[in-house]
Amino acid sequence: MAKHDPQLDDLFHALSDPTRRMMLTRLARGPAAVTELAVPTGLRLPTILRHLSVLEGAGLVTSQKDGRIRSCAFRPEALAPMQVWLEDQRQLWEARLDRLDRYVMTLMKDGNDEP
Amino acid sequence: MAKHDPQLDDLFHALSDPTRRMMLTRLARGPAAVTELAVPTGLRLPTILRHLSVLEGAGLVTSQKDGRIRSCAFRPEALAPMQVWLEDQRQLWEARLDRLDRYVMTLMKDGNDEP
Repeated sequence: MAKHDPQLDDLFHALSDPTRRMMLTRLARGPAAVTELAVPTGLRLPTILRHLSVLEGAGLVTSQKDGRIRSCAFRPEALAPMQVWLEDQRQLWEARLDRLDRYVMTLMKDGNDEP
Repeated sequence: MAKHDPQLDDLFHALSDPTRRMMLTRLARGPAAVTELAVPTGLRLPTILRHLSVLEGAGLVTSQKDGRIRSCAFRPEALAPMQVWLEDQRQLWEARLDRLDRYVMTLMKDGNDEP
């Protein structure tokens, strides 16, 4: 069994909320001020700041304050552990299918060997 | 902005828990009884059944009861929406990098044109 990876907990949790995914999709297009992130959600700034804090905690976003404006940027490299996890599951799954394939081939071969 | 996809909420939420990821990784290797899934977690059966219900809700696992044994199977196709979402973000991000590249190339070209 794989060791528990708290980074994955934070990552999947951050992405489980539609507002946070919306904010990330906006930031994937380029940096934006928090106020700009808030507009399409229709949510108030304190709510958006709470979502931002979850995204920052998962390493998906960085933000910095310049005077009265807090500007945010996407960190695409933070998605890597998730991609690795997905790939690990795919490999386990495909290894299983390969084993099944070989087993079926053996059965078919054994069947052909018999008269 | 992308439409809200509740399926993604359920998927990411299901994967945000280490026990549920452990159960999935075991099932990616092949079907297993609930009791077998419980052993490496050290958790009691009612807790495992609650986790199983979240995994089933997200479409990641199916289970069926045969007499006293409930056996579970992984549904790898349920991970597809997540893969699609990741790919969408990657494309947005890369389109942005391409635009930046073109902009820098233009600046360099303009710089070369001037004496």
